[in-house]
Amino acid sequence: MDINISSHLRALRTAVPLVHNITNFVVMNNTANALLAVGASPVMAHAIEEIDQVVSLAGALVINIGTLSPDWARSMLRAADRANELQIPWVLDPVGAGISTLRNDTLFQLLNRNPTVIRGNASEILAMHQVGTAGGKGVDSTETSDQALHAAKDLNQRYGSTVCVSGKIDYVVSDTHTAAIHNGHQLMQKVTGLGCTASALIAAFTALKTDVFQETISGMAITSIAGEQAARLAEGPGTLQLHFYDCLYKLDPQTVHRHLKIEINGPAS
Amino acid sequence: MDINISSHLRALRTAVPLVHNITNFVVMNNTANALLAVGASPVMAHAIEEIDQVVSLAGALVINIGTLSPDWARSMLRAADRANELQIPWVLDPVGAGISTLRNDTLFQLLNRNPTVIRGNASEILAMHQVGTAGGKGVDSTETSDQALHAAKDLNQRYGSTVCVSGKIDYVVSDTHTAAIHNGHQLMQKVTGLGCTASALIAAFTALKTDVFQETISGMAITSIAGEQAARLAEGPGTLQLHFYDCLYKLDPQTVHRHLKIEINGPAS
Amino acid sequence: MDINISSHLRALRTAVPLVHNITNFVVMNNTANALLAVGASPVMAHAIEEIDQVVSLAGALVINIGTLSPDWARSMLRAADRANELQIPWVLDPVGAGISTLRNDTLFQLLNRNPTVIRGNASEILAMHQVGTAGGKGVDSTETSDQALHAAKDLNQRYGSTVCVSGKIDYVVSDTHTAAIHNGHQLMQKVTGLGCTASALIAAFTALKTDVFQETISGMAITSIAGEQAARLAEGPGTLQLHFYDCLYKLDPQTVHRHLKIEINGPAS
Repeated sequence: MDINISSHLRALRTAVPLVHNITNFVVMNNTANALLAVGASPVMAHAIEEIDQVVSLAGALVINIGTLSPDWARSMLRAADRANELQIPWVLDPVGAGISTLRNDTLFQLLNRNPTVIRGNASEILAMHQVGTAGGKGVDSTETSDQALHAAKDLNQRYGSTVCVSGKIDYVVSDTHTAAIHNGHQLMQKVTGLGCTASALIAAFTALKTDVFQETISGMAITSIAGEQAARLAEGPGTLQLHFYDCLYKLDPQTVHRHLKIEINGPAS
Repeated sequence: MDINISSHLRALRTAVPLVHNITNFVVMNNTANALLAVGASPVMAHAIEEIDQVVSLAGALVINIGTLSPDWARSMLRAADRANELQIPWVLDPVGAGISTLRNDTLFQLLNRNPTVIRGNASEILAMHQVGTAGGKGVDSTETSDQALHAAKDLNQRYGSTVCVSGKIDYVVSDTHTAAIHNGHQLMQKVTGLGCTASALIAAFTALKTDVFQETISGMAITSIAGEQAARLAEGPGTLQLHFYDCLYKLDPQTVHRHLKIEINGPAS
Repeated sequence: MDINISSHLRALRTAVPLVHNITNFVVMNNTANALLAVGASPVMAHAIEEIDQVVSLAGALVINIGTLSPDWARSMLRAADRANELQIPWVLDPVGAGISTLRNDTLFQLLNRNPTVIRGNASEILAMHQVGTAGGKGVDSTETSDQALHAAKDLNQRYGSTVCVSGKIDYVVSDTHTAAIHNGHQLMQKVTGLGCTASALIAAFTALKTDVFQETISGMAITSIAGEQAARLAEGPGTLQLHFYDCLYKLDPQTVHRHLKIEINGPAS
């Protein structure tokens, strides 16, 4: 498989897709800035009264349950239904999966609407897997990358979603292939919301509607490459976040091509 | 007409007006920081139970519909009524005007409470004009500056509001005059919430209660001049946002005077 | 009394306590980043449906009423009850105390649940004192540090809370001692949410469950020392906020020891 992230990036900047975010209060500002910096256009809207109209304008949708409440959960389910109806790709970010019944129940209902992409860290993907197989009861405490990768593959089999497990190595799992991206920097973990940013950038790329697996790789890889470059310029997490937007904005196809470290295996076992 | 933005800036820093913001989740942090940096004092409060009390403490009010819900809309209408009753100036920022019935209906009700100032980009001002003339039905897709300026003038005639259309050139329209501000930098479009910041700074200046047209020009011009200076120091949108607060904080009357590029024509046709 | 902030900092970075925040929309992002930078782990959750479960996972809880509404107030009261039941320390940040009946009534109910720590500025602590003695009626307009210190001591006597009054000098009051911390920088007042950050860092230290008075001093002193260092690198409030996270992240026990300026008197009069 030939991944051409550079051409995805060019296509995204030409298309300037509108990305509708129903996301958490912590990262809304980050998400909007990252989408603007990469070349997309963000809209945030959560009231159920306007969900149908806003989803229908969007090229892609992000559902992020970071500061969930029942009202917002209802809007998320409605948005997922509407996106499916209109064949608009949507990305589920299961922030805090496993920490409460409210989150698990909502995730179970979202899973059953077959997200186009699911992106989380190892712990969240494992919790999602428990939700998907046990109806939202309990969270596994074991969280190795290998186990998360297994969970990702099973989630892909059950729900058809492309699954991205971000971490030291970022994995992207489709029904036939698994990609391992070796970019990023450990300081990125000290900045809140960079995982949520990856989900939003993945959504922006899925709006291209070419190949979800490749678009997911593009969104994740570009987040990790921009983070890696920002970390080189940073003195700590404050300066990293700042340089991240600059790097994302200035990222050119050559830089992506030069820095990308990826292995793709398939078909996935 | 002689615009003295420098003396407005001095007066604002002496008065330290309290600005009450009912604004969107994306920009709350930005707005608070910009108000502090320019020399005002921010308060954020949205619960209808405390609207009357908080409005009555404020020198000016911002109503920004960026992440609207029916509960917040009710508080906005109540706040506008209370501000009118107490003759407290208020600025309406119609973020996302035209994207949903919820937003258009709310904007229609807010318009009918005669905002002291309306500030939006060309697309939002055009949508507002449709809302104001057609009761919230439909959005015009044409969005040239000239058309927006016409819409701004008509909104001013109908509702008595000073109207600011921000963009490459920022226009401010009163019943007798039109100002065109040629400051700012295109990189500002890549930072979320700088338009919302302009609305908040305009509100801070209207708290001076001298001349709304001139105060609106001051708020808009200072946002654009600080943005222009920040852009000169910036490597991208991340560093721009950061330097923006520093520039706003350090902005002195001489710098404003030296950099301001403005034309004022009147009476407006 | 021998205060060992350096050993607290080492202990916190080893323990990586989970801090549950029910806080305001303006500062959520700041709070999360500050907790990550110092070495703790943040979780934000406000829906009453998940309060019991999330509190039970946490090492400490922050309740900050900055953008209060009745729904959130209910969750805050529930969280305080649950924290008390599980002997989880919690910090009350009374943002905007005195500006409305909603805030005062909620603060009165929270006070009666005996917060482990209360942290506010002089004006907020004075308003809290009025709330605590007059059942939420009125706000005193006098706000000198001396009066706030008296109010802090009385609040400590009545409710048993350790009380921190932050300002030019930061005071921490227990039933037997009063500490005065002479760190910090005046530019910190121009950045929104650094007071809220202090509350969150205090909470992170109280999760150590050794001595609340000393842990409160640690949280407050580390905020002020990091702010002081950031101010030295800053050109204004924008760069200060950024460097603040970097300084917090890089803060080492030697630096803390070298810069700390503290006096401790006791027993408190």
